[in-house]
Amino acid sequence: MKIAVFPGDGIGAEVTREAVRVLEALGLPGLTLFEGDVGAIAYERHGHPLPAETLEMARASDAVLFGAVGDPSCDNLERHLRPEQAVLGLRAELGLFANLRPATVFRGLEEMSGLKPELARSIDLLIIRELNGDVYFGDKGMRETADGQREGWDMMSYSTSEVRRIAHTGFQAAQKRGAKLCSVDKANVLETSQLWRDVVSEVAAEYGDVELTHMYVDNAAMQLVKNPGQFDVVLTGNLFGDILSDLASMCVGSIGLLASASLGERQTEFGTFGLYEPIHGSAPDIAGQGLANPMATILSVAMMLRHSFGLEDQAARVEDAVSKALADGVRGGDLGGDLGTVAIGDAVLARL
Amino acid sequence: MKIAVFPGDGIGAEVTREAVRVLEALGLPGLTLFEGDVGAIAYERHGHPLPAETLEMARASDAVLFGAVGDPSCDNLERHLRPEQAVLGLRAELGLFANLRPATVFRGLEEMSGLKPELARSIDLLIIRELNGDVYFGDKGMRETADGQREGWDMMSYSTSEVRRIAHTGFQAAQKRGAKLCSVDKANVLETSQLWRDVVSEVAAEYGDVELTHMYVDNAAMQLVKNPGQFDVVLTGNLFGDILSDLASMCVGSIGLLASASLGERQTEFGTFGLYEPIHGSAPDIAGQGLANPMATILSVAMMLRHSFGLEDQAARVEDAVSKALADGVRGGDLGGDLGTVAIGDAVLARL
Ligand SMILES: CC(C)[C@H](C(=O)O)[C@@H](O)C(=O)O
Ligand SMILES: CC(C)[C@H](C(=O)O)[C@@H](O)C(=O)O
Repeated sequence: MKIAVFPGDGIGAEVTREAVRVLEALGLPGLTLFEGDVGAIAYERHGHPLPAETLEMARASDAVLFGAVGDPSCDNLERHLRPEQAVLGLRAELGLFANLRPATVFRGLEEMSGLKPELARSIDLLIIRELNGDVYFGDKGMRETADGQREGWDMMSYSTSEVRRIAHTGFQAAQKRGAKLCSVDKANVLETSQLWRDVVSEVAAEYGDVELTHMYVDNAAMQLVKNPGQFDVVLTGNLFGDILSDLASMCVGSIGLLASASLGERQTEFGTFGLYEPIHGSAPDIAGQGLANPMATILSVAMMLRHSFGLEDQAARVEDAVSKALADGVRGGDLGGDLGTVAIGDAVLARL
Repeated sequence: MKIAVFPGDGIGAEVTREAVRVLEALGLPGLTLFEGDVGAIAYERHGHPLPAETLEMARASDAVLFGAVGDPSCDNLERHLRPEQAVLGLRAELGLFANLRPATVFRGLEEMSGLKPELARSIDLLIIRELNGDVYFGDKGMRETADGQREGWDMMSYSTSEVRRIAHTGFQAAQKRGAKLCSVDKANVLETSQLWRDVVSEVAAEYGDVELTHMYVDNAAMQLVKNPGQFDVVLTGNLFGDILSDLASMCVGSIGLLASASLGERQTEFGTFGLYEPIHGSAPDIAGQGLANPMATILSVAMMLRHSFGLEDQAARVEDAVSKALADGVRGGDLGGDLGTVAIGDAVLARL
């Protein structure tokens, strides 16, 4: 089982270190870890945020554990050299088309949410965001208009096969959960969305046991605040998914606890190849001080065990250890406590 | 002062009727009202959601009071015949490029918000959404890809002049409020956003008294839930504005109280030509039963008095009447009360 670890920038190194300790403590036979550079640190060392060696390492692995990228020192670099390009590059090059972000509130942490506790408590949803298409990866550029102005442009599009494969991911995820799928688009304005809606509706015929609904993205943003408990699986495109998944995280409140998986089509001998990362960023303001909460990265390891290695029991073991630690009052600064990165790692390890 | 009234569908007729009563009660000299058809009802009567007569009436007026459009009977019509096209058509044909949506929580109504009361109480922001460009009005269509698939596509773009004029609206609005402007985009991914950010930053030079910040749209969605009190004026494009303004409304909670103005460049002898509407929709489920809260439409009349007729005193008078009614416990079903449309209209009129 080959795992590529890309700590990246800011707090990335600190939080992945704890997650790796948890992974190693499981004593899985035949586990090999490789470490690679991504983000600002990779630009510094190799002149590119996603060096060829890093990409090769990812391709040669069964799963990638990713920390975070981004550093203010890169703000003025040309777009293709900025740390985010490592994220976009990995998604594209590795064909990671399905981003899974579970959002649930841990018991006792309802008060961390900006929402009223009774609404926060009702959140138990999974956002599935398409990650390889949409306006993210279409042609784009700057041009001059007929009347001599500068114009920025980006092509938004989705094709049948792109929507079909993510729709299958969505319906199958719904089958394993509450059997409800809400597809979010803007079909009243966008042709891209109309195609999306048509294809999702078509694929629905193969999943008679899942209840499919459609919702416009503006309404979905409202409903996530008004009545988040109505959602089970939310399926959406790359751009709307970017916005809604961050919104959903904030409705949960404790962003230091939220994990994500980005899955591709490639099957390894163990499961589905994927990249796993906490949804928080590189947090340059607290980097290097041992203050960051590593729980989201540890929970990303659990997702990896589940999806890329088929080790459901081990995944649950890690998740339980985190839950227990939280139930016992283990709190980082993000949750109003004063435990540091290593102390939280220790606390989870002790409960494993 | 010529005002075109377009009640539209569902509860549109009921709520505009009360707003017109308030308008007439002000006893403004030289006021003439015209009524026109838009939306599903216009399609039924004239075969088009935005008949030429309606558009002509709007052009000949100094301001438009708009109710709401949309009816389930139209769900299967071709896109260009659906009620929403009346909204998009009016915005485009009348050059209404600036959508203003104030979001504030009325005192005593904090508990209506999905957010915690202390967060809800802190909301006092104005969203300014560009309304004539972006992926809404670019070329779009369905095509076949090289490998024979169906593909939906939409062109997203902004040109210098489009961004410049809305940026001026934003900075000027900020000058009249808290002197803070937060411009929201996705410049780390989109060239359209990069142009947006460049031009907004350029225009900032003319407004040294306004503090400009930039925020990515995913982060903005989170911040609206986490700490909405940080925002004064939020400036954004058509698509992101659609999502964020609905989100902000829901953070306020009482969607039956939120008004909006859509302004163009045309100056009449009284002020800026504009279209005014409540942000709630046509609510077909409660239409025709006298249950809808007309306060958002009444508050839209106040915005009209302010922006299109320069009647700040009268605008404040209407707003005060609504505030007083709310403070006195006047509540429609949307606020947990049991007063109907006409009773609420009466209550506001009594306090005028
Ligand atoms: C860094 C950025 C390009 C990225 C995105 O927009 O996808 C991020 O916001 C995310 O959601 O992973
Ligand atoms: C009806 C629809 C086309 C419209 C939009 O997307 O602009 C609506 O959601 C709005 O915000 O006014």
